Amino acid sequence: MATAVVRRCLSVARPVSLIGVPFRKGQKRNGVELGPCAIRKGGLLETLRRLNIPVVDEGDISIDPFGFPADCAASPLKNAPEVSSACYQLSEKVITLAKDDRFSLILGGDHSLSLGSINGLVYNWKDLRVVWVDAHVDLNSPESSTTGNAHGMSALLNLKTQKSPPGFEWLETKVPEENLVYIGIREIDPGEWMNIQSTRVKVFTMRDVDKLGISKVMEITKDHLKTDAGHPVHVSFDVDSFDPSVMACTGTKVPGGLTLREGLFIAETLAKTNLVGMDVVEFNPQLGSEEEQRRALQTINTLIATILTGNRTKIPFNC
Amino acid sequence: MATAVVRRCLSVARPVSLIGVPFRKGQKRNGVELGPCAIRKGGLLETLRRLNIPVVDEGDISIDPFGFPADCAASPLKNAPEVSSACYQLSEKVITLAKDDRFSLILGGDHSLSLGSINGLVYNWKDLRVVWVDAHVDLNSPESSTTGNAHGMSALLNLKTQKSPPGFEWLETKVPEENLVYIGIREIDPGEWMNIQSTRVKVFTMRDVDKLGISKVMEITKDHLKTDAGHPVHVSFDVDSFDPSVMACTGTKVPGGLTLREGLFIAETLAKTNLVGMDVVEFNPQLGSEEEQRRALQTINTLIATILTGNRTKIPFNC
Amino acid sequence: MATAVVRRCLSVARPVSLIGVPFRKGQKRNGVELGPCAIRKGGLLETLRRLNIPVVDEGDISIDPFGFPADCAASPLKNAPEVSSACYQLSEKVITLAKDDRFSLILGGDHSLSLGSINGLVYNWKDLRVVWVDAHVDLNSPESSTTGNAHGMSALLNLKTQKSPPGFEWLETKVPEENLVYIGIREIDPGEWMNIQSTRVKVFTMRDVDKLGISKVMEITKDHLKTDAGHPVHVSFDVDSFDPSVMACTGTKVPGGLTLREGLFIAETLAKTNLVGMDVVEFNPQLGSEEEQRRALQTINTLIATILTGNRTKIPFNC
Ligand SMILES: [Mn+2]
Ligand SMILES: [Mn+2]
Ligand SMILES: [Mn+2]
Ligand SMILES: [Mn+2]
Ligand SMILES: [Mn+2]
Ligand SMILES: [Mn+2]
Repeated sequence: MATAVVRRCLSVARPVSLIGVPFRKGQKRNGVELGPCAIRKGGLLETLRRLNIPVVDEGDISIDPFGFPADCAASPLKNAPEVSSACYQLSEKVITLAKDDRFSLILGGDHSLSLGSINGLVYNWKDLRVVWVDAHVDLNSPESSTTGNAHGMSALLNLKTQKSPPGFEWLETKVPEENLVYIGIREIDPGEWMNIQSTRVKVFTMRDVDKLGISKVMEITKDHLKTDAGHPVHVSFDVDSFDPSVMACTGTKVPGGLTLREGLFIAETLAKTNLVGMDVVEFNPQLGSEEEQRRALQTINTLIATILTGNRTKIPFNC
Repeated sequence: MATAVVRRCLSVARPVSLIGVPFRKGQKRNGVELGPCAIRKGGLLETLRRLNIPVVDEGDISIDPFGFPADCAASPLKNAPEVSSACYQLSEKVITLAKDDRFSLILGGDHSLSLGSINGLVYNWKDLRVVWVDAHVDLNSPESSTTGNAHGMSALLNLKTQKSPPGFEWLETKVPEENLVYIGIREIDPGEWMNIQSTRVKVFTMRDVDKLGISKVMEITKDHLKTDAGHPVHVSFDVDSFDPSVMACTGTKVPGGLTLREGLFIAETLAKTNLVGMDVVEFNPQLGSEEEQRRALQTINTLIATILTGNRTKIPFNC
Repeated sequence: MATAVVRRCLSVARPVSLIGVPFRKGQKRNGVELGPCAIRKGGLLETLRRLNIPVVDEGDISIDPFGFPADCAASPLKNAPEVSSACYQLSEKVITLAKDDRFSLILGGDHSLSLGSINGLVYNWKDLRVVWVDAHVDLNSPESSTTGNAHGMSALLNLKTQKSPPGFEWLETKVPEENLVYIGIREIDPGEWMNIQSTRVKVFTMRDVDKLGISKVMEITKDHLKTDAGHPVHVSFDVDSFDPSVMACTGTKVPGGLTLREGLFIAETLAKTNLVGMDVVEFNPQLGSEEEQRRALQTINTLIATILTGNRTKIPFNC
């Protein structure tokens, strides 16, 4: 009986493992490392279980740095030893879970962690597709970045065409440019403009969403990534893709973002693909008012439940 | 002279009768019974009169319960005697007004009242079409409901295929499933999922609105109900269909709802059909902040004025 | 080197001159005359310079009234001497800048000032096209207006078919009706309804934006004005076109307005035409909460930077 109910509610083909990454050294603000804890306290597991979604909480990964070559510390990529350590440990965890054919639900923490999650997933699923939902392209190189923050480089360093920076020698399994699609982009650095023009990544800016509508954007995304052929898909969801009116609790807010409805539409569409993982990053529970924090948590809760059930109307709000 | 102005502003073909239903026993929260009073104080009649819309305030209907068979009190439908009494009295009132070829503008109160309004309208207009704008389908049966709240059953009990529950023997003139269209749906109970799949009601969820756009949704709605053939139309508008950012003053808020613009678009489109009635339900003037209450009243005011004039640009905001 | 960067960022074909018009006598509320000062303090010039946009601040124009014929003071157009004086002085300034082939960026002040800006631009560019982004059509005549406020007449008095009112004899170079397109309209006075039906101006109400989508609206706008043929274009942007949730700091707010994204889409589209000027009017920095004022300034900043760069993703929000 229970099995039948599970089949009805879980859209993704794999049972879910939740992994916390309480890491913030890919950017400058305090608070983003508290994301996994706040999301758990916000009742995510309870929501998923009410929906009969099989989910195991794997706890938080260790983010302790360990021995790295000296040249790493001198990298223009700030906190290189810490970033590399945390991402490596996440990658190892994801490799284990992927081998077990689990869906990796990774709660950040800042967006540098996708170096670990995507490396781990690609290790198991060579032809991984990535949908990167973000206000930013995160396409700086350590050299082009004006801040040195790794969370603005993680998409670039995940590309097959890029060499791993010093101290990231473990980062070896990469994504071909044509397997990466962006949605929600609305702030691009001068340095990123150069990188973006020389790559074959597919970019949907907010202007594109305005012009085409989210439905058409998702249709083109699926075609571009040939998701109907069953290729594995990972969604790396930076919560700053949402409009600040929906998501005030994030460090680099940019006006004019995705509505909640557009976010749920993206989630429902991707739920119909061969999804193998999801990052939810850059939620900072120390920013915003209490009401904004409550709303941010509800948004994250709903987003994750929608991607796992494939249908927003199944998520219970009032009892 | 006055007549000429009236013709210009009133879009619906009938003069308007306003009926208050200060009733809350179809759900659990206090405050929704204060809706009619708050809407009147908010200046609705003044707005309509400035627009030269002929409107008569019929006052509030009596919601006093009276003698019912004993089996009614034992029904899993909570407060069955009260709900049935209020709805019966509303139905009788609507029958009188409908015979007089008046447009019934019914201010709730909770959504259980649509049992009365629709029963009354169908008595006079046998081929009534119903557009149900709501976050919820209100398709629970007394048996499938986990709460027993009648406001979650009123759409189901209005269907021709359903037997009236004990104590609702007066409820006899019902709507064929194919004459009911939903717009705005985004939260469906497990029990409702079963009912929805066995009916031929037409459902536009918020995902459908996202995918098709509100203009296309209204086009299909009109085609589906064949409104161009002149069939009478009733709109049952649950204010929780609006996004909580527009309508915070309602008991069962669900994020990701209709924008004000979408609500007005629905109103303008329906104004071009043979409209005979409108419910405006679930506004609870005790919820939300003062600013949210002001906004909610303005929204309701504008919505009603737009459905009666057929054109949002005619509604005056600043003098 | 600098030149190369400038070319990349500036979309409009001309270097920019900023002109402040601290004028409020075209309407009744205090505060709108503080707009130019507040926008400058809000960092607009700094934003534009970071984007390497060549911009000269021409300061504020004088709004002192000077000798006018006696019949002017008796006009139903309130404060006629003051309005005419301010607009005349703005017109003269714009004529000088236009001769120098500068882009006139005019910061209001109330919308009556467009009498001056458009007169000045038409003096130099005879076949000027005007895109009027506004909640209102501003199509009252001094006679049809119930308030006498000039900010509700400025579009009408700019039309070639209209005679200049007493005291506005300098107002001579006018716009053919077919060269005026409205976007964002959602509140039309009874008097304006008469005027609108006898003109060939093109009106996109918010219902049209809902129905067609902003992308299609802009496509039709460009076709209607034949902007691809290189005709000069002026955009007169009343900030009350934005939804009050985006722009609370304006005197005649009307719910159901443009989203920030729609505003930026309009800006990006017009940036690809032969733009010669822009009014930004009706921002009142004394209205709204502090947070709303901050947001309003950010919106204006982003809107202007987007029209000048032609690309919202180039505007920096976080450093
Ligand atoms: Mn981001
Ligand atoms: Mn990111
Ligand atoms: Mn309802
Ligand atoms: Mn509802
Ligand atoms: Mn206006
Ligand atoms: Mn205006």
